Amino acid sequence: GFAKVDLSRQRRNGYPEVIYGAGKTAEQIIGIIGSLKQHAENILCTRVSPVKFALIQQVEPTAQYHEMAQCVVLTVKAIPQTTTTIAVVTAGTSDMAVAEEAALTAEVYGNRVNRIYDVGVAGIHRLFEHLDEIRQAQVVIVVAGMEGALASVVGGLINRPLIAVPTSIGYGTNFGGLTALMTMLNSCASGITVVNIDNGFGAGYAASMMNHLNSGEKN
Amino acid sequence: GFAKVDLSRQRRNGYPEVIYGAGKTAEQIIGIIGSLKQHAENILCTRVSPVKFALIQQVEPTAQYHEMAQCVVLTVKAIPQTTTTIAVVTAGTSDMAVAEEAALTAEVYGNRVNRIYDVGVAGIHRLFEHLDEIRQAQVVIVVAGMEGALASVVGGLINRPLIAVPTSIGYGTNFGGLTALMTMLNSCASGITVVNIDNGFGAGYAASMMNHLNSGEKN
Amino acid sequence: GFAKVDLSRQRRNGYPEVIYGAGKTAEQIIGIIGSLKQHAENILCTRVSPVKFALIQQVEPTAQYHEMAQCVVLTVKAIPQTTTTIAVVTAGTSDMAVAEEAALTAEVYGNRVNRIYDVGVAGIHRLFEHLDEIRQAQVVIVVAGMEGALASVVGGLINRPLIAVPTSIGYGTNFGGLTALMTMLNSCASGITVVNIDNGFGAGYAASMMNHLNSGEKN
Amino acid sequence: GFAKVDLSRQRRNGYPEVIYGAGKTAEQIIGIIGSLKQHAENILCTRVSPVKFALIQQVEPTAQYHEMAQCVVLTVKAIPQTTTTIAVVTAGTSDMAVAEEAALTAEVYGNRVNRIYDVGVAGIHRLFEHLDEIRQAQVVIVVAGMEGALASVVGGLINRPLIAVPTSIGYGTNFGGLTALMTMLNSCASGITVVNIDNGFGAGYAASMMNHLNSGEKN
Amino acid sequence: GFAKVDLSRQRRNGYPEVIYGAGKTAEQIIGIIGSLKQHAENILCTRVSPVKFALIQQVEPTAQYHEMAQCVVLTVKAIPQTTTTIAVVTAGTSDMAVAEEAALTAEVYGNRVNRIYDVGVAGIHRLFEHLDEIRQAQVVIVVAGMEGALASVVGGLINRPLIAVPTSIGYGTNFGGLTALMTMLNSCASGITVVNIDNGFGAGYAASMMNHLNSGEKN
Amino acid sequence: GFAKVDLSRQRRNGYPEVIYGAGKTAEQIIGIIGSLKQHAENILCTRVSPVKFALIQQVEPTAQYHEMAQCVVLTVKAIPQTTTTIAVVTAGTSDMAVAEEAALTAEVYGNRVNRIYDVGVAGIHRLFEHLDEIRQAQVVIVVAGMEGALASVVGGLINRPLIAVPTSIGYGTNFGGLTALMTMLNSCASGITVVNIDNGFGAGYAASMMNHLNSGEKN
Amino acid sequence: GFAKVDLSRQRRNGYPEVIYGAGKTAEQIIGIIGSLKQHAENILCTRVSPVKFALIQQVEPTAQYHEMAQCVVLTVKAIPQTTTTIAVVTAGTSDMAVAEEAALTAEVYGNRVNRIYDVGVAGIHRLFEHLDEIRQAQVVIVVAGMEGALASVVGGLINRPLIAVPTSIGYGTNFGGLTALMTMLNSCASGITVVNIDNGFGAGYAASMMNHLNSGEKN
Amino acid sequence: GFAKVDLSRQRRNGYPEVIYGAGKTAEQIIGIIGSLKQHAENILCTRVSPVKFALIQQVEPTAQYHEMAQCVVLTVKAIPQTTTTIAVVTAGTSDMAVAEEAALTAEVYGNRVNRIYDVGVAGIHRLFEHLDEIRQAQVVIVVAGMEGALASVVGGLINRPLIAVPTSIGYGTNFGGLTALMTMLNSCASGITVVNIDNGFGAGYAASMMNHLNSGEKN
Ligand SMILES: Nc1ncnc2c1ncn2[C@@H]1O[C@H](COP(=O)(O)O)[C@@H](O)[C@H]1O
Ligand SMILES: Nc1ncnc2c1ncn2[C@@H]1O[C@H](COP(=O)(O)O)[C@@H](O)[C@H]1O
Ligand SMILES: Nc1ncnc2c1ncn2[C@@H]1O[C@H](COP(=O)(O)O)[C@@H](O)[C@H]1O
Ligand SMILES: Nc1ncnc2c1ncn2[C@@H]1O[C@H](COP(=O)(O)O)[C@@H](O)[C@H]1O
Ligand SMILES: [Mg+2]
Ligand SMILES: [Mg+2]
Ligand SMILES: [Mg+2]
Ligand SMILES: [Mg+2]
Ligand SMILES: [Mg+2]
Ligand SMILES: [Mg+2]
Ligand SMILES: [Mg+2]
Ligand SMILES: [Mg+2]
Repeated sequence: GFAKVDLSRQRRNGYPEVIYGAGKTAEQIIGIIGSLKQHAENILCTRVSPVKFALIQQVEPTAQYHEMAQCVVLTVKAIPQTTTTIAVVTAGTSDMAVAEEAALTAEVYGNRVNRIYDVGVAGIHRLFEHLDEIRQAQVVIVVAGMEGALASVVGGLINRPLIAVPTSIGYGTNFGGLTALMTMLNSCASGITVVNIDNGFGAGYAASMMNHLNSGEKN
Repeated sequence: GFAKVDLSRQRRNGYPEVIYGAGKTAEQIIGIIGSLKQHAENILCTRVSPVKFALIQQVEPTAQYHEMAQCVVLTVKAIPQTTTTIAVVTAGTSDMAVAEEAALTAEVYGNRVNRIYDVGVAGIHRLFEHLDEIRQAQVVIVVAGMEGALASVVGGLINRPLIAVPTSIGYGTNFGGLTALMTMLNSCASGITVVNIDNGFGAGYAASMMNHLNSGEKN
Repeated sequence: GFAKVDLSRQRRNGYPEVIYGAGKTAEQIIGIIGSLKQHAENILCTRVSPVKFALIQQVEPTAQYHEMAQCVVLTVKAIPQTTTTIAVVTAGTSDMAVAEEAALTAEVYGNRVNRIYDVGVAGIHRLFEHLDEIRQAQVVIVVAGMEGALASVVGGLINRPLIAVPTSIGYGTNFGGLTALMTMLNSCASGITVVNIDNGFGAGYAASMMNHLNSGEKN
Repeated sequence: GFAKVDLSRQRRNGYPEVIYGAGKTAEQIIGIIGSLKQHAENILCTRVSPVKFALIQQVEPTAQYHEMAQCVVLTVKAIPQTTTTIAVVTAGTSDMAVAEEAALTAEVYGNRVNRIYDVGVAGIHRLFEHLDEIRQAQVVIVVAGMEGALASVVGGLINRPLIAVPTSIGYGTNFGGLTALMTMLNSCASGITVVNIDNGFGAGYAASMMNHLNSGEKN
Repeated sequence: GFAKVDLSRQRRNGYPEVIYGAGKTAEQIIGIIGSLKQHAENILCTRVSPVKFALIQQVEPTAQYHEMAQCVVLTVKAIPQTTTTIAVVTAGTSDMAVAEEAALTAEVYGNRVNRIYDVGVAGIHRLFEHLDEIRQAQVVIVVAGMEGALASVVGGLINRPLIAVPTSIGYGTNFGGLTALMTMLNSCASGITVVNIDNGFGAGYAASMMNHLNSGEKN
Repeated sequence: GFAKVDLSRQRRNGYPEVIYGAGKTAEQIIGIIGSLKQHAENILCTRVSPVKFALIQQVEPTAQYHEMAQCVVLTVKAIPQTTTTIAVVTAGTSDMAVAEEAALTAEVYGNRVNRIYDVGVAGIHRLFEHLDEIRQAQVVIVVAGMEGALASVVGGLINRPLIAVPTSIGYGTNFGGLTALMTMLNSCASGITVVNIDNGFGAGYAASMMNHLNSGEKN
Repeated sequence: GFAKVDLSRQRRNGYPEVIYGAGKTAEQIIGIIGSLKQHAENILCTRVSPVKFALIQQVEPTAQYHEMAQCVVLTVKAIPQTTTTIAVVTAGTSDMAVAEEAALTAEVYGNRVNRIYDVGVAGIHRLFEHLDEIRQAQVVIVVAGMEGALASVVGGLINRPLIAVPTSIGYGTNFGGLTALMTMLNSCASGITVVNIDNGFGAGYAASMMNHLNSGEKN
Repeated sequence: GFAKVDLSRQRRNGYPEVIYGAGKTAEQIIGIIGSLKQHAENILCTRVSPVKFALIQQVEPTAQYHEMAQCVVLTVKAIPQTTTTIAVVTAGTSDMAVAEEAALTAEVYGNRVNRIYDVGVAGIHRLFEHLDEIRQAQVVIVVAGMEGALASVVGGLINRPLIAVPTSIGYGTNFGGLTALMTMLNSCASGITVVNIDNGFGAGYAASMMNHLNSGEKN
């Protein structure tokens, strides 16, 4: 009907269109899943509440729900996994929802993911304990709210692409994540690139494209 | 004296420290070049005006000046070049200064660069004429001011990492580049990551790290 | 009582006053409809929730409700329809509520409307498939949230007036539609004019005035 | 060389590309005029200072300079003039530079223009003295700085398309024109559309497209 | 206990302290009324919801509630009324809640008030019908949301103090009243002073001080 | 020619139009003075630099220049002076330019003015030494930059109208006077009204209207 | 599991990590308390609602709840108290919740605290009545919303460190505390330092570090 | 004349008033120095350009100029020095001007100062090399521009009061220091307090008050 699902994207872009669940009813999501299933291999739907998922599951019983990431995944056939990893690092435990959206997106596109959570700069020794692991990753995603300083610190310690994701965690002059975003855009560590506030999906997607460059495989 | 040049960065990061020339006197820049020359291989100094360069050149006669990019380069030994390319795309002719900072940075770090300038969405057929070239690049940098829509359009047409650089070109509600930045952060095309306004250096540096992932060479 | 309904507007402006339903109770709306009915031909009331409409319908059984547009229409006598059309184009499916407010407003004032929805720049081939249709319109309304780039792309491809409507769809640095608004105001495509965020009514009203210029009829 | 002048625009859009002179050197402008002259009929270059014009005139002696509008015009052949007019109305005398950019743009594209300046709401009787003239126009452009209230007042008195142009005239919380822009976007008078701060060119261009709708001529 | 009610204000300022009810429980308000009653003559409590008032009324049965103004008044003894009036003018019907807070405050302090509502600039003839009345007032309060242009228009037509009150009525770039506030601060009509968004109380209080200047009575 | 000087304002408003000199050339100012002199009694021109005044004085030798206020005054006939005073109070010495614009405006319109400068809250005993004087004024203007706290303190100590003028004095988060403006709009002291940043003229004009209320004279 | 509690902080910092309860479930808080209890002496958990506390209390019956401060405290062993005091001063009664968070934090870390509430500048005599007490404190915390002027006034009267805490109390241009924050950062009284909006905890913690400097005890 | 120098401040506050030189002429500064010299012991004047100092020096030949700090000092008698130190730490070399204003202010008030410059997080090993020194200080001032992350990192490693000073160093979304300010206010490290952008003076003054608490000396 109304929605013009972008089926040619898989051909153009290598990935089927991902469904952005926020602001769509369960019925709309079920309809789009129906269209995509005829063509796409695997389906990812982000920003789906548990309540909406319960309705979706009645129609799509094989759909899997990842609660912390608020994502629905429908795997039709297995996809080859990369040998290199993407590290997903968070400053605090409150940043984990956004981090999981990023990690899951990366996994859905066939990437090996290493989660390293709650290592923010207020207790920087926690970061140093995991530095070797972080340095082994091909691409690093840093997820941080409040002042977002973790991105600069990690960026100064590695020589791989770093994608910074500001989160809306904080209060007062945090301004819904704007402070962390500005911190990351102004980082004095070189080579950091940034996505929108709370945009775990975008970070996971971009990291996957970078990680596939390495393997020589067409991503 | 005062400046603690980060000589270990080359070892940690794979690149020597780059000198950010804005707000430094010619004397300070000459001093830092002096320290770096004893250790580093090649030197890059950004945001140097022609007047400052004239003073630097008297002390460093082999230094080369790239006027549009406002950069100084001192090449000590040749570096191996990548086989894959980075495409640098601009919306208008006024975005070329920032684009050149990005392109030159990438070249200094050994990347092959393809410049595709003045193909903004106001006359979108110009972009389509260069689409094949852009699709052949390993990483694409899109530099745009005003409303910055070019990043979204290119992002919807490729399946490689795209780094968007907002520029301060425009007037009124352009707010010194903020509008283009916000456009790029909110892009509906997936996989776009963003750097600070006018930060050609950061985009070139990040693109180089991504481009070296591909070659299997330790960047 | 309190409200000074602007009955002379129809004489001055060619249109009766439209009721802005947001922040008015059903009782207040019913009262204003009562006053207008004695004078005006057709009545349009925007921003009316289904719950409020249920109460209005009890008193005004001939009133029609357009759910997606959240508008109530009372047609007293048929109005002549234009031969030329207004195209209403949206970037995504989430922009449809605002688009319908625009389309319905235009129809109430006697304009032929062509709806072309979900053709945003992330999959730009969808837009090109509808380009001929868009070019046949006398006036084009482009409704887009997130980064709002669609307005610039369409604006570069047509030579008719284009009214851009930013929507509040998006999150993070979208700032409730401000990013799309700024994008549209800074568009590098010439001849685009802009209305307030989510102001479908204003766009439909302005488009109608432009479309009636063409017909030679006094609008 | 570098600039990809959009020669097909005249065919696609009905108008040749206009040169935006701000941030271009006289040499660059002369180069672009050279390219355009081989194809276009008439040439308009905006945002040109008197100093730059002096240099341009040495190469292009038939070029004419409009000082208040800061525009250069090269007329190659006469264009047919519309029978209907565009009214350009300003609040104060300080808004005249922006108004002239709008008026001249409209004239270059063949429109009859009626200038009505310095009739702001602080002395509203001045506006009423010119109301008949304003009502005779097919399209009205209102140019106002400070609080921009004139657009709302005129909008409430006419039934034709009104394009509002906020100017950066004012101080303090005027914020470089932002206050006037916001006033115009939130106008309680229906059918007002808005362009960027100080964008006289955009208003003149859009008004021309609207005015040509009326005449039945292909604009 | 905790609250240090400013009992000396009546002596210093001529008025007893007014209770700002927002964010206070009914119990806290009852407590403060209790303290004030022992000293003050008349009591005014603003920003009280109907639910809170029901609780207050059980303890203070002579308290009167003004629903549109959301205010509670306890009159202990009659106060002399001014011979001159304060006019309270609104742009729309939605601005009436704020206007009533202003009008009631002025009345509590002994001022004669003339309410003139729903005369906004979209239908400016409505304003002109009441101009004589407005000109007879000693002080004029103009209450307007959306773009707030009414303050400028009235300011250009009178020669008395005008207090402008921006309201949070509107949507999109209205920014919760900020646009109307900025409009009023930048008004091109001289002699307008402004209070905080939705601050009807402040406007009524200031107007009362001005109106008492006239009578020669010590306010 | 171009400028429609509002000659009827004196009749409508009691005051001739004041010339806002910023952004006008000396020639334009001389022209407007010429028109006004035929009708008005006394002329005030604000925001005139010493350089511009030198040119004006050649044509208008009786014009007087007030350097700190940056104002030109041409007195044609003496005007009656009020018996009551307006107090102009500043926080620092840097606020004196704005304060002088206010004081001079008030004097030109026949008000007795009492200047009390440099009594900001950092050394609050200086304010208390002048409290009696301030309390004797009919209207008080408080001029303050930086954080603007002086307005709240004075407002809590008097029972007369207080007009607060934020100045752009300060740095960093002062944001060109925005912080002082916001402080004044949010003042917890009742009855304060506010004008635009650095708008000494507006404050002096409004104060004069209030001060004339008292005298029973038609201001 | 997930959370990397910073147990070494007590050793590094002198204090155990404090639990920030906002956005954590009761279960998560109970889990973290469990880990900390094995090591830390006393536990403080901020931003805990009464509902969450009821659940915590079932598992930790010795936990004490401070309702106004919204804090939970578990005292394991008594800590030595300072001889010098920290004064906590508020402008209004609505600022008391933030003030209590500050006061309680200071007490948990062994500081003597003197609470002086509701002494804002609208009735400045209330402040002067408590000036001696305030001057006896070693460190002063000033908590204020609306325009935040109290910090400047107190700062001009003492010669001890003053920590200013802006609160989100207010409406309209208060912008959720931003106005008070800006006021405090721009204070013309020297030596004031500022924490985030509503950050009572941060103020109490910093004040404790300052107060312990005095005693010579290692804090 | 005009300026009411706050001579009692030394008695009230322990320090003579400091002269804020920005926006004052050399003549005004000389005048204020003259007044202060009759009473104060030592004089500090901040924000004085070399050009202004040259004029001051002609009248006050014993005045000393600190070029990097842009400060003038007149020492009348020696003041006792603290045994404990204040550490002043900067992220980059460009932050040194602000750092010197802070360090000099602290020294003028008798504090021992330890400067540790250019140890920003992009090369964090530089910070760790100086950690012992930093930990020995009684109070730490961290001066940083760009993203300001250094304050959070240092704050997580010490247990003394830390005053963070954001600087205006940077470009694009740095917004003249606002990003660094917001980073510091939102720091996840406890106990950090913040001063205005570039306010080295305020930081030095506050640090001195804290450092004197320790010594038991009346500061
Ligand atoms: N144009 C530029 N934009 C942003 N960062 C830069 C630029 N040029 C150099 N840098 C960074 O600035 C650092 C040096 O800063 P500094 O110590 O102030 O010279 C380098 O390590 C680069 O990472
Ligand atoms: N959805 C809408 N958005 C913006 N303006 C509207 C809308 N619907 C109606 N209006 C305008 O609001 C005016 C009525 O406002 P009111 O007097 O408050 O009912 C009408 O004259 C229209 O110009
Ligand atoms: N004063 C102006 N304001 C806004 N846009 C303009 C102006 N003058 C020309 N333009 C637009 O800028 C485009 C040319 O940009 P450029 O390629 O940078 O010269 C033209 O196609 C016009 O659409
Ligand atoms: N660099 C500075 N930044 C902020 N405040 C300053 C600075 N230098 C001096 N001050 C303050 O400004 C006050 C003097 O202001 P003024 O009366 O304008 O000279 C002094 O009491 C200091 O508290
Ligand atoms: Mg944690
Ligand atoms: Mg171009
Ligand atoms: Mg879609
Ligand atoms: Mg005028
Ligand atoms: Mg109405
Ligand atoms: Mg002073
Ligand atoms: Mg109180
Ligand atoms: Mg450095």
